[in-house]
Amino acid sequence: MIRAIVLGGSRGIVKAISESLKSIGCEVFAASKSDIDTSNMNSVKKFLEIHDQTDVLVLNTGGPVAKEFVNITEDDWKLYHNQLFLGFCKILQNMKINEGGYIFLISSSVIKEPNSKLIISSAYRAAFSEVFKILSKSYAEKNISCINIAPGLINTDRTRELIENIKEYEKSLPMKRLGEPEEIGNFVKSIIQNNIKYLSGVVINFDGANSNYIF
Amino acid sequence: MIRAIVLGGSRGIVKAISESLKSIGCEVFAASKSDIDTSNMNSVKKFLEIHDQTDVLVLNTGGPVAKEFVNITEDDWKLYHNQLFLGFCKILQNMKINEGGYIFLISSSVIKEPNSKLIISSAYRAAFSEVFKILSKSYAEKNISCINIAPGLINTDRTRELIENIKEYEKSLPMKRLGEPEEIGNFVKSIIQNNIKYLSGVVINFDGANSNYIF
Amino acid sequence: MIRAIVLGGSRGIVKAISESLKSIGCEVFAASKSDIDTSNMNSVKKFLEIHDQTDVLVLNTGGPVAKEFVNITEDDWKLYHNQLFLGFCKILQNMKINEGGYIFLISSSVIKEPNSKLIISSAYRAAFSEVFKILSKSYAEKNISCINIAPGLINTDRTRELIENIKEYEKSLPMKRLGEPEEIGNFVKSIIQNNIKYLSGVVINFDGANSNYIF
Amino acid sequence: MIRAIVLGGSRGIVKAISESLKSIGCEVFAASKSDIDTSNMNSVKKFLEIHDQTDVLVLNTGGPVAKEFVNITEDDWKLYHNQLFLGFCKILQNMKINEGGYIFLISSSVIKEPNSKLIISSAYRAAFSEVFKILSKSYAEKNISCINIAPGLINTDRTRELIENIKEYEKSLPMKRLGEPEEIGNFVKSIIQNNIKYLSGVVINFDGANSNYIF
Repeated sequence: MIRAIVLGGSRGIVKAISESLKSIGCEVFAASKSDIDTSNMNSVKKFLEIHDQTDVLVLNTGGPVAKEFVNITEDDWKLYHNQLFLGFCKILQNMKINEGGYIFLISSSVIKEPNSKLIISSAYRAAFSEVFKILSKSYAEKNISCINIAPGLINTDRTRELIENIKEYEKSLPMKRLGEPEEIGNFVKSIIQNNIKYLSGVVINFDGANSNYIF
Repeated sequence: MIRAIVLGGSRGIVKAISESLKSIGCEVFAASKSDIDTSNMNSVKKFLEIHDQTDVLVLNTGGPVAKEFVNITEDDWKLYHNQLFLGFCKILQNMKINEGGYIFLISSSVIKEPNSKLIISSAYRAAFSEVFKILSKSYAEKNISCINIAPGLINTDRTRELIENIKEYEKSLPMKRLGEPEEIGNFVKSIIQNNIKYLSGVVINFDGANSNYIF
Repeated sequence: MIRAIVLGGSRGIVKAISESLKSIGCEVFAASKSDIDTSNMNSVKKFLEIHDQTDVLVLNTGGPVAKEFVNITEDDWKLYHNQLFLGFCKILQNMKINEGGYIFLISSSVIKEPNSKLIISSAYRAAFSEVFKILSKSYAEKNISCINIAPGLINTDRTRELIENIKEYEKSLPMKRLGEPEEIGNFVKSIIQNNIKYLSGVVINFDGANSNYIF
Repeated sequence: MIRAIVLGGSRGIVKAISESLKSIGCEVFAASKSDIDTSNMNSVKKFLEIHDQTDVLVLNTGGPVAKEFVNITEDDWKLYHNQLFLGFCKILQNMKINEGGYIFLISSSVIKEPNSKLIISSAYRAAFSEVFKILSKSYAEKNISCINIAPGLINTDRTRELIENIKEYEKSLPMKRLGEPEEIGNFVKSIIQNNIKYLSGVVINFDGANSNYIF
């Protein structure tokens, strides 16, 4: 039985991942914010006392508030530094991923094409992506794969908060639609189901051909 | 019934892709070099007269000879320009990909970390990756996904030609092993099987955490 | 006395480079299309018989016609493969760059953000950038620096051909203006004048903060 | 008279930048750690009360201690988050850069090729590079250029701390030597001296052809 811990598991992308993993018989712990608040180091510590190992870990957290650079306070930076970076580091420092396991990071397409409205997210998600890349090499020795999924605009509550007129916005996208959470859910499921291990240390943009850079 | 055309289909990675697609009920035409030689424009033209449409297309071709830059002749450049670039362009200019279809390009990790021994491959595979990226946006309008898979060292005859002492070499890799063709075969299968469409316009390194760049 | 060969030297960016190098006392051979036509291998060969060594080489060539993918003919591909790729390879295979010298490649910002109108340019300039990157490592052993300058929209005749209403277009740019050829000319001059050698194997976007990718 | 504020100005790369700017008549304030400690928000605040505007700003700070991931404490993360990220954000939020000015960020080649020994540096320097990229677009409207210089191994005290046997190490580098601080100093000087403005929003690797990624 494969055991999975999915952070932020009650909505959107990770809800789809949880459902998808359950459909192939994984035992999924979908941690909600009451189980673990990655912006609070005590909460992270307590969570780790109970959940100290897993086969599959899905790192995810809600996106920060959209704020212009000049309006971001020291407290904002520190809060999201905890939430998007430090909490994840603590988890990887203290949770045992079992041999042959997987770590999925749900980051964002802004790590490669940063966005002025999402400047906090661009910064800290990129920071953690660096850590994740580095660690992929040592995890590889234990046959653990590290996959950084960088979604573009997915059909979630979060996207509906960020974009005012979704219908209009969708017309500007190459596929004329947002991505569906289930597409990412099924993607994650397939990797595990087929025991695909050599896909590791990689950032996978999931944005319906919307980005413009070559690599 | 999903129909797939898989180029260079008799060995290695694409053989695994062909097998994998058959296992989910696709009708696969695994084109061998006698069906189409992408280095020969007449051969490409004849192939296109017979195979003028498909649901799934897998673009793949054997890698060029490993040669130092100074020893590459004008004929070498032209041969591999045809084989790795022009033949593929001609195919995409003339073959209809049916709505909701997929195009997979099997390129190489050298497009992002070019390699002096594989200079021809680095150059032309990068060139075609640019074309493929650009086209992903127009294909998106027809719900066709374009996925560029960039394998690192996979357990194929080709790799055994390039690397002298494989056993020794594997110890230097993060996963202490080459990738298996089946990992890529199953990856391609899963995308189609689950109808994952929003993964498009993306380069997916498949190298077991071996590359060193962040994005 | 530093000797420089500047290809395509009568207009735009490379004219500015030539002027700039002359201003610091370099002996500049500004090769026009009648001296060398990089799309014609015989012309390249003849040029190399006369110009077989230099201290500074500036590789540059006019951009290809803007054509939609479906309309590009086999002859178009082959012409620009010669002009943007093969001619440059032949030059580097046969011209001696003196120890402590420099090679500047004037490519284009489309190599990192490819553009459907400039698909030929995106493809072959990226291909040659791969070759150039690989060679930077062997040139380094002879203290020769390889610098790939990737201009965005610069105030040249070429840009005026590509963009219809320049005045309007400029308003969409972060700096509200095109780049000036002299900015690149002075940049190249400064590198040589100050004997800056450790800048090598690098792609330098020169686009007035217009690109969107992070690295 | 061009006024420049250079952070961490008493040694290594930024000392060379300070000297270089003075040589062209800039009035340079080379801030030492007693003037501003970017790891201490009070120190940053006090500094900004005195130094509230400039023409040229050079953002630089000492690199963090080399520590394996598992050994990095919460205090380490927070200290270097301040030093490498938050202090710089505060400066850019509160210091006026005069129209036509420049901001140089001295980051590190690890932002593109992260390094397990320099994991803290890789993470936070990448994070700030994202902020810097985003801001380059708004600064462009005031004709202020943002240039991110990412040095490889430069001949400084810092490098001598990190690398045990420098002489041996140099043999493994393409140029068989470390970079010299003066190469970067002269580079920065030249940009300002020649009023090159269109070079903005760019990361410039300065590593003697040592990196392996293409872009």
